[in-house]
This record gives sequence, structure tokens and C-alpha cells, in this order.
Amino acid sequence: MLLSGGLDSATTLAIAVRDGFDCYCLSFDYGQRHRTEVRFAGELAKKLGAVDHRVVRIDIGSFGGSALTDPGIEVPVGGVQPGIPVTYVPARNTVFLAYALGLAEVLSAGDIFIGVNAVDYSGYPDCRPEFIRAFEAMANLATRAAVEGRKISIRAPLIDLPKEEIIRTGIALGIDYGDTVSCYQLDEAGGACGVCDSCRIRRDGFEKAGVQDPTHYRRDVASPGR
Amino acid sequence: MLLSGGLDSATTLAIAVRDGFDCYCLSFDYGQRHRTEVRFAGELAKKLGAVDHRVVRIDIGSFGGSALTDPGIEVPVGGVQPGIPVTYVPARNTVFLAYALGLAEVLSAGDIFIGVNAVDYSGYPDCRPEFIRAFEAMANLATRAAVEGRKISIRAPLIDLPKEEIIRTGIALGIDYGDTVSCYQLDEAGGACGVCDSCRIRRDGFEKAGVQDPTHYRRDVASPGR
Repeated sequence: MLLSGGLDSATTLAIAVRDGFDCYCLSFDYGQRHRTEVRFAGELAKKLGAVDHRVVRIDIGSFGGSALTDPGIEVPVGGVQPGIPVTYVPARNTVFLAYALGLAEVLSAGDIFIGVNAVDYSGYPDCRPEFIRAFEAMANLATRAAVEGRKISIRAPLIDLPKEEIIRTGIALGIDYGDTVSCYQLDEAGGACGVCDSCRIRRDGFEKAGVQDPTHYRRDVASPGR
Repeated sequence: MLLSGGLDSATTLAIAVRDGFDCYCLSFDYGQRHRTEVRFAGELAKKLGAVDHRVVRIDIGSFGGSALTDPGIEVPVGGVQPGIPVTYVPARNTVFLAYALGLAEVLSAGDIFIGVNAVDYSGYPDCRPEFIRAFEAMANLATRAAVEGRKISIRAPLIDLPKEEIIRTGIALGIDYGDTVSCYQLDEAGGACGVCDSCRIRRDGFEKAGVQDPTHYRRDVASPGR
């Protein structure tokens, strides 16, 4: 289970626990600006009933090429634009899923959960259903388990859901979304900026779901995103 | 270009340089027993004409599950056996190629070279041609380049070659294989044990190629592999 501390992966974890899976969660410290999310991930893993949580420090940020890992590239705050945003981290989900595949093999796990969502993040190539299917096909040739006939499934239960349905699902499963963080430029206390794409998509989801937004915004954000 | 410091990846680098590619080499420090190989990789990159060499420290060893990364699992020295050996590192080539994909994207590179070989290492699932093809298909859905119509090729020029042909190719390209290391339990000076699978396959290759074996064996190996 790839767990970021965000709204989507928290919901994915709650779904997997509901469906009876023993969840071993994996988070990454990859030099992202919003490293605070790793702390939130650990607390979510406990609260939502995961069996285990590991944090792996990876070096993907050193390649640069993304506003999330390269301090020289600004996180856009002017509103969601069409196309692939500069917050896209090259090959990020490929690297994350590759690690998950290694851990799944060591644990003899048959399922890998990832909270990708193609609706709101359609700009990220590695959040699309065809990418997930292609990774699964590759995974089923890559491992000892594959050679021995045990299949690996990559499960992305949120992939086709709009944000408001993800939120309704999670609330029905008892998630307090105040425990989750989505902002691309979180402060150390977990305060959200309110104006990056991730904040905007999240707040829009709460509005459409008709649910009060439990996000902790930074004190200096008077009227987030307006 | 994935470069390990071993015989196969050195030959792959020499082939890519011959074919006119500007080679950006990537090595990993992943807690492998034979970490000395990373030093050899750096020297090979320079000597064989690479443009750049980067070492990324990754945490895949922390999952365990392999004799190469888990001190509790012995490296077998009794001779090559059928099946997947305990030196197999779960999802290793998937993780390596995922990083290479990220770097390729940042560099706008269209080709990733990997020195896998299906003949001598048929026990490793992630050295098979069908794995490489599946990774390439996935990579061509994963990235910004893919969305924009630029293809990524995963090139594995050694995949069908027996070890002796790899050696003949490399010698024709001017490689001194004394600069390469293959042993699974290298000492710090780069001395090979002579008895692990990798040493046995390598020495057998030199014998079949009719070439004197330039490997530096440890002083305490009186008659390697006999």
C-alpha cells in the first residue's frame, strides 16, 4: 500500500482495510517540499488500522525536473491549468510502484494498492488507467512470484472517481480528513497554502461533496484560494 | 545507461559509445555486499568515454530477501544451480529502470541501456526479454515524453549473447576486463572470491572465449572455483 498522507491514499487505505487486507504501508521521503506529509502518513497508518508502516528515503529528487523537488521551480498558485503541470515528478509513480513490488515480493503479498486518480489529476501521465495496467503486466514478468505462477494485482480503487465521491466514501469509512494533507507547499505544522493545484482540487471536492472542509490552512491564508 | 561496474554493463557502455550515444551513467548504492563495484563503475565511466556518472543511494536492501543485501543469507559458493538463486534482489531491475526512466525524462533522453543477459542469468526473472519489452511498454505510458509522442527505447544489446561473445565484443572495443568486477562478495580492494555463481559464470566465459582471465582474485583464493 503506497501511503502519502494525502486524501486519496488515506481513502485507499480505509478501503483496503474494509475489504479485509492486512495493509503494509510504504511512504517515501524523496526530497519533496511537503515532507511533513510523511509524518501524517505514519499517523494515518496507525489510526486506519495498517499492520505496518515503512518510510524509504529515495533520491529521485536529486534529478530535478519538478516543482515538488527542485527549489528553483515555483509551485504554481494561480489556478489549475490544462496539460502536465510542473509539479509532475519524472517517473514518480513508476519508482514508487517498483519499490512496492520489491516489498510485496519480500512479504509474499499478491496486491499493491495505490491511490491514483485519473479524474482530477488527468495531467499526470502516471495516474492513468492504461499506465496502471501496463505496470501490472510488467510486474507479472518481473518477479520470482510471477515465474512461480503467483499473480500480482495493482489495485487503484479511486482511479475513476471524482474527488467528491472519494470524500464521501472516506467519510462513510470513518476518515477524519483533517488528519490528511494534500498541499504541495505545506508548512512544518501541516498548514496548507490553499492556492496550489492540490489545495484547489481538494477544496473543490469538499464543496461538491457538501462537506465542511476540515483542512488546516496556514494562518497567513486569510481567504484560501479566492 | 545503467552501469554496475561489472563485465556486462561495461560492455554495454562500450557498445553505446561506439554507436554514437552520449552516455549518462547511473549506478546504485543499494546496500549490496559488493559495494566496491560502485567505485569501479565510476572509473569505467571515465575510461570508456561516458559524458556523466551519477550514483544514487537507494534503500531497496532494507526490505531484505536477498543474499546480496541481507547479511543473514549466505552467498552460495558450491556451483550454479537451476532455478532463481538467493542472490536475486526482489524487483531490482524494475527499480533500477524506474530511476533510469526518471533521469531519462529529465535529460530528454530517448534511450535507456541496460546490460542484462538472459543466457547466463536465466534464473533472474527481470533479465528476460519479455520483461524488458513489458517495461518499455509501461515506460511509454508513464512519462511526459510519452504523452507528447516521444518514444523511450529500452536497449539491452547483450540480452541474447553467451558470455564468451560478450567478452569477445568488449575486447574488440578495447575494454580491459581487469577494470571490471563481477563477484558477489568482492573485498574492498576489488578482489574476487572465485567461487560464487557470478565468478564462475565469468571465468567460464573467459575460458570459452579463449582469453586469459584478467580478474583479480583475492590472495586467499589459491585455486579459484576448483
